[in-house]
Amino acid sequence: MTTSSDNGATAPTVSTQIHLASRPTGWPTPENFSTVRVDLPDLQPGQVRVANTFVSVDPYMRGRMNEGKSYVPPFAVGEAMTGGAVGEVVASTADALPVGTTVLHQQGWRDVAQGDAAGFTAVQRVPGVSDSAFLGILGMTGLTAWVGLTTIASIREGDTVFVSGAAGAVGSAVGQIARQLGAKRVIGSAGSAEKVRLVTERYGFDAAFNYKDAPVREQLPEHAPDGVDVYFDNVGGDHLEAALDVLNRDGRVAVCGAIAQYNTTEKTPGPDNMANIVKQGLTLRGFTVGFHLDQAAEYQQAMGPWLRDGKVVTDETVIDGIDHAVDGFLAMMRGENVGKMVIRTR
Amino acid sequence: MTTSSDNGATAPTVSTQIHLASRPTGWPTPENFSTVRVDLPDLQPGQVRVANTFVSVDPYMRGRMNEGKSYVPPFAVGEAMTGGAVGEVVASTADALPVGTTVLHQQGWRDVAQGDAAGFTAVQRVPGVSDSAFLGILGMTGLTAWVGLTTIASIREGDTVFVSGAAGAVGSAVGQIARQLGAKRVIGSAGSAEKVRLVTERYGFDAAFNYKDAPVREQLPEHAPDGVDVYFDNVGGDHLEAALDVLNRDGRVAVCGAIAQYNTTEKTPGPDNMANIVKQGLTLRGFTVGFHLDQAAEYQQAMGPWLRDGKVVTDETVIDGIDHAVDGFLAMMRGENVGKMVIRTR
Repeated sequence: MTTSSDNGATAPTVSTQIHLASRPTGWPTPENFSTVRVDLPDLQPGQVRVANTFVSVDPYMRGRMNEGKSYVPPFAVGEAMTGGAVGEVVASTADALPVGTTVLHQQGWRDVAQGDAAGFTAVQRVPGVSDSAFLGILGMTGLTAWVGLTTIASIREGDTVFVSGAAGAVGSAVGQIARQLGAKRVIGSAGSAEKVRLVTERYGFDAAFNYKDAPVREQLPEHAPDGVDVYFDNVGGDHLEAALDVLNRDGRVAVCGAIAQYNTTEKTPGPDNMANIVKQGLTLRGFTVGFHLDQAAEYQQAMGPWLRDGKVVTDETVIDGIDHAVDGFLAMMRGENVGKMVIRTR
Repeated sequence: MTTSSDNGATAPTVSTQIHLASRPTGWPTPENFSTVRVDLPDLQPGQVRVANTFVSVDPYMRGRMNEGKSYVPPFAVGEAMTGGAVGEVVASTADALPVGTTVLHQQGWRDVAQGDAAGFTAVQRVPGVSDSAFLGILGMTGLTAWVGLTTIASIREGDTVFVSGAAGAVGSAVGQIARQLGAKRVIGSAGSAEKVRLVTERYGFDAAFNYKDAPVREQLPEHAPDGVDVYFDNVGGDHLEAALDVLNRDGRVAVCGAIAQYNTTEKTPGPDNMANIVKQGLTLRGFTVGFHLDQAAEYQQAMGPWLRDGKVVTDETVIDGIDHAVDGFLAMMRGENVGKMVIRTR
């Protein structure tokens, strides 16, 4: 890094970006995307150019590929998609973000980002921890687990907590954070025997089952002899229905996205046991982390020591190269990742 | 009333009681019930005998006719059913409840009740108001509306509130209390043109529609151009689905029983738009008033002046005679009542 790069003289001038070529119907295919190389304009005053190190692919992005009302605006057809990314400032006309600063921002799905400094947040790198953690356990993923358990599900000491997608980035964080917050029993579901082992052996859940082995409705009660107090719902559908069967009085459900539903263009019937919501006085609350970013500082203060002391462990699946970002996204949607799925772009 | 009745000398000695003869499957029929005349034993020390003036019939009682786990224990087959009732002490061996005291208690479904004084609560009669109000707007019915709007749905000033079953005892209270608590717009559904008129003209809702005229999903959006912030759900099914379509961000649903579901022995599919819970950050919370009785005093303090000043009005449908209690219950389940359904037993 030389000072001459302050004006971008040695910084990359081309950005490779993934555009949404057309809106998918049901499962996306590679044809719904295109890879575009864009010549970057010179920096305006107060801007930065950032060489991304890692960009994030997340389930919620599928929703943004649709038209219409959602909790985040849809991606525009023919334009670069966006999403979480971490990178290093390689050119800057903004005093607050000099060259060499590591920044977190929302210009993902590309290898080089550029824009007003206000859109980029400097982060403190953690020694020995990959910068990709800012896209996962130290970022939105971990915060999602934290907000869902605390603000949304009001977790209490002694609760039995059930998490679907327990081998996933959010799910594995949910189980481990629940434990740190005093859960008595933590139960998870996952989609393969290998993931089930990971959930119990590596993430320390008390019990886990493979939801492909038998109906969730049959398996969950065996693992929850005293019922469930908190269900952290990552998938909806049969899992939610099974949870409603066994939730204890005053049980709480944090409804966090629903991969199974993102790809469904037809409306699908909800749980057949909604009456339990009244009978047991249950609370179902949906949320997206974007509305709870004010809790990030509190969360990072809690998570820092847990990570440092090895009380919380995390995994990630890394796909190399911006040209393989779509492959990574589709693999993540198919559940092929272990832990957080990221694309390494540098 | 003479002092001689203190030992029960002139008080009735026979209680006409409605027993559950067999558990209904689906809709109850008269054959599921029997009328039994019981000779009452002499009072033990600390007991009262009460001539009921009014007994209550309520939707939740259908649930108690089933076997199995519910929020209240099931009625026993071959025994008298129970429920809210108001009456006058006609014999007493309890100093705290002398003859002539008006009491509220849970020995309904009979014309004469008897038991330990601890099961009976003295109430302050309101001049010019029928004692039946203690079974309705001043009792559990009104408290249900209050708890649902305040504790469960966290109503805020300026909210748009939608209520199903708006001509019913709870529904009409919900709309009027919501107005007093600052709702901007109050919308109701009801099952006939006559009830729709009642809801707008007598109960002062801003809009109402007949859910039998066209699908709720088509009608509700027309009456909620700015969406809905709070949905007070008395019926479940198509109404909940329609509400989930139009609930605004951070919308709240108080799920209060579900008449449509009480008579269903088969499991019925839930709403097809559960994904909106996440998209809009909605909260669905089920409740039964029995867990919130500690709010009764606060509620009655609020409701007293509203009733006195005519800001809240109430209706009731009265069926005469304990021998017609089952007819009254079934008529209420079919939605034939206007306002609270009560049986006059004296």
